[in-house]
Amino acid sequence: MSTEQNASNTTAPTQFLQVSNEAYAYRRLGSGPRLPLLCLQHFTGTLDNWDPAVTDPLACGREVILFESAGLGRSTGKVPDTIAGMAKHALAFLEGLKLTSCDVLGFSLGGMVAQQMVEDRPSVFRRMILVGTAPRGGEDIMHLEKPNLAKHLSDPKLQGYTVLQKIFFAPTESSQKAGAAFIERLTQRTEDREPISGPAVAQAQLAAFRDWEKFTGQRFANLKTIPHPTLVVNGIHDEMIPVQNSYWLSANLPNAVLLTYPDSGHGSLFQFHESFMRQAAAFLASNSKFAPY
Amino acid sequence: MSTEQNASNTTAPTQFLQVSNEAYAYRRLGSGPRLPLLCLQHFTGTLDNWDPAVTDPLACGREVILFESAGLGRSTGKVPDTIAGMAKHALAFLEGLKLTSCDVLGFSLGGMVAQQMVEDRPSVFRRMILVGTAPRGGEDIMHLEKPNLAKHLSDPKLQGYTVLQKIFFAPTESSQKAGAAFIERLTQRTEDREPISGPAVAQAQLAAFRDWEKFTGQRFANLKTIPHPTLVVNGIHDEMIPVQNSYWLSANLPNAVLLTYPDSGHGSLFQFHESFMRQAAAFLASNSKFAPY
Repeated sequence: MSTEQNASNTTAPTQFLQVSNEAYAYRRLGSGPRLPLLCLQHFTGTLDNWDPAVTDPLACGREVILFESAGLGRSTGKVPDTIAGMAKHALAFLEGLKLTSCDVLGFSLGGMVAQQMVEDRPSVFRRMILVGTAPRGGEDIMHLEKPNLAKHLSDPKLQGYTVLQKIFFAPTESSQKAGAAFIERLTQRTEDREPISGPAVAQAQLAAFRDWEKFTGQRFANLKTIPHPTLVVNGIHDEMIPVQNSYWLSANLPNAVLLTYPDSGHGSLFQFHESFMRQAAAFLASNSKFAPY
Repeated sequence: MSTEQNASNTTAPTQFLQVSNEAYAYRRLGSGPRLPLLCLQHFTGTLDNWDPAVTDPLACGREVILFESAGLGRSTGKVPDTIAGMAKHALAFLEGLKLTSCDVLGFSLGGMVAQQMVEDRPSVFRRMILVGTAPRGGEDIMHLEKPNLAKHLSDPKLQGYTVLQKIFFAPTESSQKAGAAFIERLTQRTEDREPISGPAVAQAQLAAFRDWEKFTGQRFANLKTIPHPTLVVNGIHDEMIPVQNSYWLSANLPNAVLLTYPDSGHGSLFQFHESFMRQAAAFLASNSKFAPY
């Protein structure tokens, strides 16, 4: 396995892996004795949406692998309109890398893909971090038409990343200030950037959210079959995927610790990146069969 | 201020402090440069109910002060039938000790007293840890008549501490095993023990719970006035004070991190004492004005 030694998402080159019909864009950063950490991204986000304040410290002692799913950025293919379809791409990518064991960090949409992957291929994964996400059968998942989100998404004054500051962070001075710093960090990468997602990406991913809200049989029963130690993280004022979904995750996953952050929204891991990095690193460093760390 | 150097609740002598009309029993353990940590106990619990696996590691680098409220153990006086009444005793005790600044750890009933003290005397407290507790206006607080609790409390085969193993821990093999280890640790103290609480203690404290469930005005509005960095901790299967109460605490306190533990009940801090100790120590070590650590 080749290991890139450049341990920052600001500078790590985008690489490409051909697996059957698709070429997946990805980045690898860091190295070390710990299991690699696969990172799965949020709605419409590309490799460039990973905050270096989160990825870089986690790349100390381990390899962090940022994955661009089909149809995003420079990855080929079509964006699936189900989480299961996205999980298939991510599992094919891991197979192509010949990575048979790893930890996984899924943020938002990526957290749903992570759950699906762990259900589909439990032996590949050791520990799971789910941030700002929801279980299958969750509620109020990325309803962009809600007034509190729509007012920002339809504001012509908010262009590019600036809309993220509004919708990922709480409407307080401290949270918005953290949001501005987050945007600043994302813009530090100036070369070898991914193309920004267009409406077709959003449409397919929104269809996947609507499908993920549906469930058959006993609600959340699927979670009880996932024994993997899991860390669930959520901002307490998350408008995009409300914290209730993280309550359900941690109450129904048999082996999950929940951590919620105050004064923060969907992007709580970026707002409190120092705390998140410490907590995630401590969680991942544990070899206990129990989630608490 | 005198400091006992014996840093274990298994061996720390019980001391007495005379303040106006009452003599309060208490124990001090540990010393160091950090702020003292005042520990406030659960329903009917005495100084002997503090798990040394929790108190002793926290007494590294700081003084841990275990307080016996009026009418408990060898403390004189009458058990108040309101949380406000209990907070008055604890504040009088701090004044008697001439302790003008400290952190506070409140478990269950003690967490309610801690909230009341912080509201009544905000400048005395720096950081607050609330475990297995509820805000004023919370729900389902210590309803011992519920079948899942009553079946243990009325079981003649369960005597003394053994009932705690049932009601503080989840009905799984792993949680019950942790419960047995907890009981074992409590019994290590063999001398200078406190008298066990009788029905009069229980009756007054239950009245305080019933009163604490009531609220006037906007529910949880009082929490919004508490800016203190707070760590809220709860076992996900807490039958005595369900985790919903901790959701309310962390959603309405403006500066609170929530941590929930899987596979555990009311005594989650005792079950996962190694994790709790690490998390609590990291939280208390922070000097940030923000709760995340």
